[in-house]
Amino acid sequence: MSPSDADAPAPPPEGPPGGGAAVSRREFDALFEAVRTWGRWAAGAAGRGAWNGVTADHVRGAAALVRSGTVVPLGRPWDTAPGPDNARPALHHMTDLGDVEEPEPSAYKDFLGADYHGKSVSHLDALSHIGYRGRLYDGRAAREEAGAGGARFGSVAALGPLVTRGVLLDLPAVLGVPWLEPGHAVRAGDLLAAEEALGVRIGEADAVLLRSGRFRRRRELGPWDPGTGSAGWHVDALPLLAERGVALLGADGDSDVRPSPVEGLHSPVHALALTAMGVPLLDNLDLEALSAACAGAGRHAFMLVVSPLNVPGGTGSPVNPVAVL
Amino acid sequence: MSPSDADAPAPPPEGPPGGGAAVSRREFDALFEAVRTWGRWAAGAAGRGAWNGVTADHVRGAAALVRSGTVVPLGRPWDTAPGPDNARPALHHMTDLGDVEEPEPSAYKDFLGADYHGKSVSHLDALSHIGYRGRLYDGRAAREEAGAGGARFGSVAALGPLVTRGVLLDLPAVLGVPWLEPGHAVRAGDLLAAEEALGVRIGEADAVLLRSGRFRRRRELGPWDPGTGSAGWHVDALPLLAERGVALLGADGDSDVRPSPVEGLHSPVHALALTAMGVPLLDNLDLEALSAACAGAGRHAFMLVVSPLNVPGGTGSPVNPVAVL
Amino acid sequence: MSPSDADAPAPPPEGPPGGGAAVSRREFDALFEAVRTWGRWAAGAAGRGAWNGVTADHVRGAAALVRSGTVVPLGRPWDTAPGPDNARPALHHMTDLGDVEEPEPSAYKDFLGADYHGKSVSHLDALSHIGYRGRLYDGRAAREEAGAGGARFGSVAALGPLVTRGVLLDLPAVLGVPWLEPGHAVRAGDLLAAEEALGVRIGEADAVLLRSGRFRRRRELGPWDPGTGSAGWHVDALPLLAERGVALLGADGDSDVRPSPVEGLHSPVHALALTAMGVPLLDNLDLEALSAACAGAGRHAFMLVVSPLNVPGGTGSPVNPVAVL
Amino acid sequence: MSPSDADAPAPPPEGPPGGGAAVSRREFDALFEAVRTWGRWAAGAAGRGAWNGVTADHVRGAAALVRSGTVVPLGRPWDTAPGPDNARPALHHMTDLGDVEEPEPSAYKDFLGADYHGKSVSHLDALSHIGYRGRLYDGRAAREEAGAGGARFGSVAALGPLVTRGVLLDLPAVLGVPWLEPGHAVRAGDLLAAEEALGVRIGEADAVLLRSGRFRRRRELGPWDPGTGSAGWHVDALPLLAERGVALLGADGDSDVRPSPVEGLHSPVHALALTAMGVPLLDNLDLEALSAACAGAGRHAFMLVVSPLNVPGGTGSPVNPVAVL
Repeated sequence: MSPSDADAPAPPPEGPPGGGAAVSRREFDALFEAVRTWGRWAAGAAGRGAWNGVTADHVRGAAALVRSGTVVPLGRPWDTAPGPDNARPALHHMTDLGDVEEPEPSAYKDFLGADYHGKSVSHLDALSHIGYRGRLYDGRAAREEAGAGGARFGSVAALGPLVTRGVLLDLPAVLGVPWLEPGHAVRAGDLLAAEEALGVRIGEADAVLLRSGRFRRRRELGPWDPGTGSAGWHVDALPLLAERGVALLGADGDSDVRPSPVEGLHSPVHALALTAMGVPLLDNLDLEALSAACAGAGRHAFMLVVSPLNVPGGTGSPVNPVAVL
Repeated sequence: MSPSDADAPAPPPEGPPGGGAAVSRREFDALFEAVRTWGRWAAGAAGRGAWNGVTADHVRGAAALVRSGTVVPLGRPWDTAPGPDNARPALHHMTDLGDVEEPEPSAYKDFLGADYHGKSVSHLDALSHIGYRGRLYDGRAAREEAGAGGARFGSVAALGPLVTRGVLLDLPAVLGVPWLEPGHAVRAGDLLAAEEALGVRIGEADAVLLRSGRFRRRRELGPWDPGTGSAGWHVDALPLLAERGVALLGADGDSDVRPSPVEGLHSPVHALALTAMGVPLLDNLDLEALSAACAGAGRHAFMLVVSPLNVPGGTGSPVNPVAVL
Repeated sequence: MSPSDADAPAPPPEGPPGGGAAVSRREFDALFEAVRTWGRWAAGAAGRGAWNGVTADHVRGAAALVRSGTVVPLGRPWDTAPGPDNARPALHHMTDLGDVEEPEPSAYKDFLGADYHGKSVSHLDALSHIGYRGRLYDGRAAREEAGAGGARFGSVAALGPLVTRGVLLDLPAVLGVPWLEPGHAVRAGDLLAAEEALGVRIGEADAVLLRSGRFRRRRELGPWDPGTGSAGWHVDALPLLAERGVALLGADGDSDVRPSPVEGLHSPVHALALTAMGVPLLDNLDLEALSAACAGAGRHAFMLVVSPLNVPGGTGSPVNPVAVL
Repeated sequence: MSPSDADAPAPPPEGPPGGGAAVSRREFDALFEAVRTWGRWAAGAAGRGAWNGVTADHVRGAAALVRSGTVVPLGRPWDTAPGPDNARPALHHMTDLGDVEEPEPSAYKDFLGADYHGKSVSHLDALSHIGYRGRLYDGRAAREEAGAGGARFGSVAALGPLVTRGVLLDLPAVLGVPWLEPGHAVRAGDLLAAEEALGVRIGEADAVLLRSGRFRRRRELGPWDPGTGSAGWHVDALPLLAERGVALLGADGDSDVRPSPVEGLHSPVHALALTAMGVPLLDNLDLEALSAACAGAGRHAFMLVVSPLNVPGGTGSPVNPVAVL
């Protein structure tokens, strides 16, 4: 902050109801600087961002977490119906019903299509998905790196798969509620309290999955527009996550609390995670079964495998991540 | 066989060059009967076929194979260019280049689409993909189970993810050649010889990956039409694979040798694996990096994770399977 | 009606509010028989149905109607946003922004996609679009003629373009209202009254366009679900239209009044027009500008040109029909 | 030309075989200046370019050309098979086969998709399709006007339909050959000779359709890559076409002769017509039936109706233009 700012008394933190303390653009930019890791990796590897920090040791450590052999998929059903949380419904077309290709045998085939970024498809955001002030992660000029042919930097093909320790931050379980209400901001203090309550400590190369209970709420109350209200991280938790060295943030929303607490920014956590920290995001996971599995097992850490489609120039990928307990 | 057939001396087995011994339709049907497992699983679980046999023990056993922490993806690049092995090229369209959704931050988004069954996209075949004589796995009537809305039985959503032991049958390594020529049939005896040479024994719940070196050949010699010529399993190997209780067959082709050695059937291994045995298939994997990794590690067994997209009614899914050594 | 039906007192005609008199399934089937023209055309030409009756004389007559040279397009904007009347939004993706193909010159390209049948895209229904009791037009077995590869009979490619006289039945203009309310049924008597009021008589080979004012209402009141309520033809008008020998029915809805007045049938006018009479339909036209042009010109007949895309096996096509006054 | 250029003797015009006289970039730029009509139309109308010059008189005049009532569609079949002239095959997927929407009646539906610019789909190029030296027609900055959301200037929705006089320049008929060989350049003198031979004079607001016989050649000899060799206009014909005030250029190729005779430009006629003159193009028309119809009728002028889909922001549209004789 400039001296004149420092002289003025800070305005009382007033965010939108439930969205957490309001953050000015200037404060956000300071946060961005504080967590940014541009230049940390060799130029040729920068497109993988934080995943460069996931070593063979982390992989081995993740595999060593497998005890019960319970396999929990986290991907939502491919949703072809429009709705308040599905503005660009996915496509599923049968292209052969045993009558196109010559039998025998008869073949049944289908076409899948999706403009998967949004609020419905479970997907991974690669580093090329978000730019801030014209820059992608590592300071790359967005206009140079992204075009109609795809992303030249930070594509999902550069990421490849991730095998690491996953940690479920099951906030509703911690708070004893069925779900967090839309607009509920999860702040740094909540993270620390959740670690304590769940008996887990987030560390280097972890994939942190934030459960808000969105899909339980959706099943019980029906869909709503998460662009208007969703539970998610407040930006003030990002420095702590950065300090811990996380490799991936995932959520049953898209990690951002909405309405956004940051003045003039619709998705500030996206900018901090992807653009500043080089940390990919997993959006729209269904974490209900994992919540039950972790509760049943009495532990919230597990092997997580995320394997995006190998799309050169892709800004992300639909995925069906797997937790193995 | 009818009496008059029995009287006549059997004609010498003459297959297409390299395609292995010719198999009559009658012999094929006997094979089909021999390996079929219809009725083995409860009706509600039958759509998962052989994956019902993958237990928590198998998952734990697979995780225990992780030693070096080397992660090897097996998915080919999403290919939008038509070619002799890509008759229905995949789609990749950028739908936001920072100028559609309101900044800040700016968003880069894309649409992915594919009629993924075929010879290009790395994908999983669910049990609804193939029918024989009007029947899907477990004897379900194909006409009742598959329609324009998708597959009611044997969908990929029923499968979910697989975590099990993977075994790479690296035939070119065994034979000391860079690749198998298109048309090369891998027979039961070759399987036994490969096990011996590689020091591995295929067993219950294994995912068997057959490497022919297709993508090394493609990189060196250019693409060709695998419908005309591809290396793959001869049907005579299937009883052995069935006896061993495999859960999944994968290949850098689509598991079938072509030209097909079976009279009147274009994809007999598909019919045996999917329709008779309930064993899903992984097609068009790039196994070159895995070959090198296994050679380097001196072992050909590893943890394999396959996580198809969660598509209700889908006959399969593009995937990027992961081997972890 | 059979004698026993005639003995019984007819129930009072009670339709849904505004939907017109209720029609039993038996009455509908009698209507179907009464208007059906199966066998009228040679087998090779049957897929064009009523368009076989549009002769060179009709084309010349249509061209002779051009006086002011006013050209009025009837196609709605391609709508990529979901809504109550757009359950399967169209796709529009830019595929080159001057940066994919080598310049110079620079090229800007796009992909268009639509599952166009529905309530949003202006489109033509070919004869393969609708079957009744398992039969398509001309009595063809629907199951034999339509498959995953497309329609073998009654495809839009068989239709080709239509040039004929168009007649706008501007019901709101006749009734002095801004629009017909959803559920308003247009009956045979309304047709005769409209002819009288507009000074036009529908005849052989005409394309009859029914305006309900849907898109004026939509612009003023917002969208609604036309599946629940839409103004359109009551089935009792179809015998009169059949008698007149019309070639095409078009509307700003989809020709059917909804709720349907016919017991157990969601789209009875579709069945009568397409399946019984071989008369293609034009759905979701924007007739507001044409209404103004006809009012201004003081006449409601004009040259109409409808030119569907040449899709072999297609069940219809998005179109932008043109009226020329 | 600079003085030093002027001093040097001009090299003999040597183009690629058949591609016509070579044209330097400097000569091309002079041509571009000579034919450009930037600023001719009001800013709000500029996106329609030369179509602003098509008046009600031209429409009436076109309708008056209808004599025999023969209707000839010019659109090629929607082609879903890749090939040397179809690098991005169109999509056609059945989405209902009577089993998705509730019967009765039963509905048969399909999805159509195409990245239609290219060498296969019959389509209209709107003015936003091509830029030269960073500028679209009327001098608009391409980078400002085209983005992932579509074209803000020169979209196909701005064009709407065209009804005007069409003239078929049937070069093979004039030359007494079955087709022009790929690479054959049609020059200004050829245009004059064709007018003479066919008894027609191209004038204000005409749509000029150049037939090379491409699709007859394709049917007899099979497909080839038109990017490597195609018959079409040499740039030296464009000043004459501009002088005549044409509204539209169409062809069975894409109007450009290839290899391009212009140094460093792959599609110089596109740049002259679309970017300099504001004249839309019709590509990949099948003109074989029209050739026969014109020969039969003994005249090469007719009413042409082109009605693109109403796609806001679209750079063109698949079309099925109609000639009526």
